[in-house]
Amino acid sequence: MSKLNRIRHHLHSVQAELAVFSDPVTVNYLTGFFCDPHERQMFLFVYEDRDPILFVPALEVSRAKQSVPFPVFGYIDSENPWQKIASNLPSFSVSKVLAEFDNLNVTKFQGLQTVFDGHFENLTPYIQNMRLIKSRDEIEKMLVAGEFADKAVQVGFDNISLNNTETDIIAQIEFEMKKQGINKMSFDTMVLTGNNAANPHGIPGTNKIENNALLLFDLGVETLGYTSDMTRTVAVGKPDQFKKDIYHLCLEAHQAAIDFIKPGVLASEVDAAARNVIEKAGYGQYFNHRLGHGLGMDVHEFPSIMAGNDMEIQEGMCFSVEPGIYIPDKVGVRIEDCGYVTKTGFEVFTKTPKELLYFEG
Amino acid sequence: MSKLNRIRHHLHSVQAELAVFSDPVTVNYLTGFFCDPHERQMFLFVYEDRDPILFVPALEVSRAKQSVPFPVFGYIDSENPWQKIASNLPSFSVSKVLAEFDNLNVTKFQGLQTVFDGHFENLTPYIQNMRLIKSRDEIEKMLVAGEFADKAVQVGFDNISLNNTETDIIAQIEFEMKKQGINKMSFDTMVLTGNNAANPHGIPGTNKIENNALLLFDLGVETLGYTSDMTRTVAVGKPDQFKKDIYHLCLEAHQAAIDFIKPGVLASEVDAAARNVIEKAGYGQYFNHRLGHGLGMDVHEFPSIMAGNDMEIQEGMCFSVEPGIYIPDKVGVRIEDCGYVTKTGFEVFTKTPKELLYFEG
Repeated sequence: MSKLNRIRHHLHSVQAELAVFSDPVTVNYLTGFFCDPHERQMFLFVYEDRDPILFVPALEVSRAKQSVPFPVFGYIDSENPWQKIASNLPSFSVSKVLAEFDNLNVTKFQGLQTVFDGHFENLTPYIQNMRLIKSRDEIEKMLVAGEFADKAVQVGFDNISLNNTETDIIAQIEFEMKKQGINKMSFDTMVLTGNNAANPHGIPGTNKIENNALLLFDLGVETLGYTSDMTRTVAVGKPDQFKKDIYHLCLEAHQAAIDFIKPGVLASEVDAAARNVIEKAGYGQYFNHRLGHGLGMDVHEFPSIMAGNDMEIQEGMCFSVEPGIYIPDKVGVRIEDCGYVTKTGFEVFTKTPKELLYFEG
Repeated sequence: MSKLNRIRHHLHSVQAELAVFSDPVTVNYLTGFFCDPHERQMFLFVYEDRDPILFVPALEVSRAKQSVPFPVFGYIDSENPWQKIASNLPSFSVSKVLAEFDNLNVTKFQGLQTVFDGHFENLTPYIQNMRLIKSRDEIEKMLVAGEFADKAVQVGFDNISLNNTETDIIAQIEFEMKKQGINKMSFDTMVLTGNNAANPHGIPGTNKIENNALLLFDLGVETLGYTSDMTRTVAVGKPDQFKKDIYHLCLEAHQAAIDFIKPGVLASEVDAAARNVIEKAGYGQYFNHRLGHGLGMDVHEFPSIMAGNDMEIQEGMCFSVEPGIYIPDKVGVRIEDCGYVTKTGFEVFTKTPKELLYFEG
C-alpha cells in the first residue's frame, strides 16, 4: 500500500475526513516533494475519499506541480493564506481533522481552525510510528549516508595537526563533502579538542588541536533524503592513562549495547546495557544523556533509546548508540554508531574502527 | 531599560503574571544564552514581579548557569518535563500567560497548559516589534556580518570557471568562510547558473557553470549572533542583449526602492517603488515574491516589505531589498542588499558593486 493510501486507511479507521501535514520532512516522506517554506505556509491535505491537495508559497508552485500527481495551489505573500485555503479546498463539513501537533505552531493551528470547524487530533504519533520501521530501500539510502560519514571523518583524521584549529578541520571536512556532491551535513559538524570535548554540547572554535589529549568528531551527512550521524574520539600525541581508561570504558559500554540489541528487547534495556557498564565503574554521573536517538529523514526521530521508554525494539528500526563520559576539565569521550535492527541483531551504518586510534600532533 | 525589564513592564501593562519564551533566538536575544534544544524542551520563564527562571535539557545546565545571572534548572531525557517544570516553579495561580505562539508547537502548548491554568495569549507580535528596531550596537554587528558576506561573494567570483560546478564554488566559499572563523552561513549558499537561476528557489547541483549566461550568488553569514544576506548576479562570457536588459531592469528597480526608503514611508510603498519599474517594463508577472524581509538575529524577521503591509518604516529597521525577474528557460536575475534605515534614508550592509560584472568563463 502506498504511503498516502496508508494515511487514507488510517483516516477511515479513526473516522476522520482529513489529515493536514505541515512538517516539510513528512511532506517529502509522503510525496517525494521537499520544500522548506520558512515562515511561509505549506500544507498537504490528504482526504479519506478524494485526491490530496498541496498548498505551497507561490514561488514553489511550478516545482511542486512537476513533483506530485495531484492538484497544487499557492498564495503570494500579500494574500491571506487561510482565506486562500478556505476558498480553494472542496467545501464540505469536516468533523475530525488530524494534524501534526509536534510540528504545527499555535499560530498556524489557529489559522487552520478558522478554515476547518472540526475537532483536531494529533497525528504526530501516527507519523512517527509510520516512519519508525525503515524499508530495505530506506536502509540502503542510510548505508550510503553512513559511507559518506566514514569518508568525512577520515578527512578529519587526515587533517589532525597541532597547527590546525577545530574550525580549520571542520572547514576541510565540509569542503571535501561539498566537492563530493553533499549539499548538507546532518547538523553542524563538531570537532572538539581536549577539555572542549568534556562538554557534551561543546562549541568548536578557533582553538588549536591540543597535544596529549583526546579529540572528538561528531558529524553526519544528508544524502538521498536520509541522514547519517557518527562520533569518534581519537588520541593526539600521548594522552595519560586516565584518559585512555575512560575511552576504553566508553567503548565497552558502546559495545555492550550493540551486542544487546535485537528484536523484542526494550529501548530502556538497550540504554541500561550501556549505562550499567559506566555506572559499575563509578562514572554514571558523567553519562548525562540518553544512549541514542532514532534517525532517518531527520537526524533525530523515533525511537528514543532511554530509561523510561519501554518501546519494544523491532526489525527495521534505525537509531544511534552513543554513550559518552564527560568529566569537566579532565576528559570527554563519546563513541557513536547508528545502525538498523535485523532479524537477530544490529548492523551499523558506519565502519570506521572503534579501537582507540593514535595520531601524531 | 534592560530587555528583561521591558518584558516585565509589558507584563504589567497587559496584567499578565508570566511570559514563557520558547524560541531559542528570543532566549538568546533576551539573555545572551543560546541553545538549540532540538526536540527537547527549553523555556525561559519571565515573571512580572520575581526573578526569571531558565529551564533547559540537563546537558545544558552547567553552560546555562555560567551564562545567566538567575536560577537555572534542567531535566534528563527520562523525566517528564512538564512535571519537572510544575514542581520547580514557584507555585501560585497565574491568570494570564504570554507565550510565543509562532514558535510554540501544539504539543508544547498542551504541555504548558498542564502546568499553568491561566489564559494564554500570543507574545510573538510583541517580540517581533521589540526586535524590529535595531540598536546601534546591533547595527555594528550586522555591518560586520555584511563585510563577511562581501568577502564570501568575492571568493565566489574568484572561483568562476567553466570547469567548476555550482557545488564546487559553494564548497570554496564555505571553506574560506570557515577558515575565517565563520561557523555558520545564514542559510544554504546558492550558486545558480543559467536557467537554474531562472527558478527563484533553484537548487544548486553538480552542473558546470554555463558560458554566455548569468550566474547568481545568494549567501550570507552568521556572526556575533547576527546574520547577513546578499544576492549578486554576474555575467559569464557574453550573455545576449536580452539577458543584459533584464539585468539592468532589475537593477533599476532595486535602486528605485533603495532611493525611496526613509522613515515615514510604508513597507508596501517600498515594495511598489521597485515593482512599478518592473511592471511598467512588462515583466511584473516574473517578479513573483515580495521585495524584502527583515533580518537581524534571524535571517527572516520583521518587517516584511510587501504589498498589503502598511507598516510605517522607522529609523533602525533592517531589511532586504531584493527584486528578482525569473523568466523560465530564459534568464534569472536577483539583486539584493540588506541595510538599515537612517534618519534620512537607507544604508546597505554589503558593498559589492552592483553594475553588471563580467567574468571569463
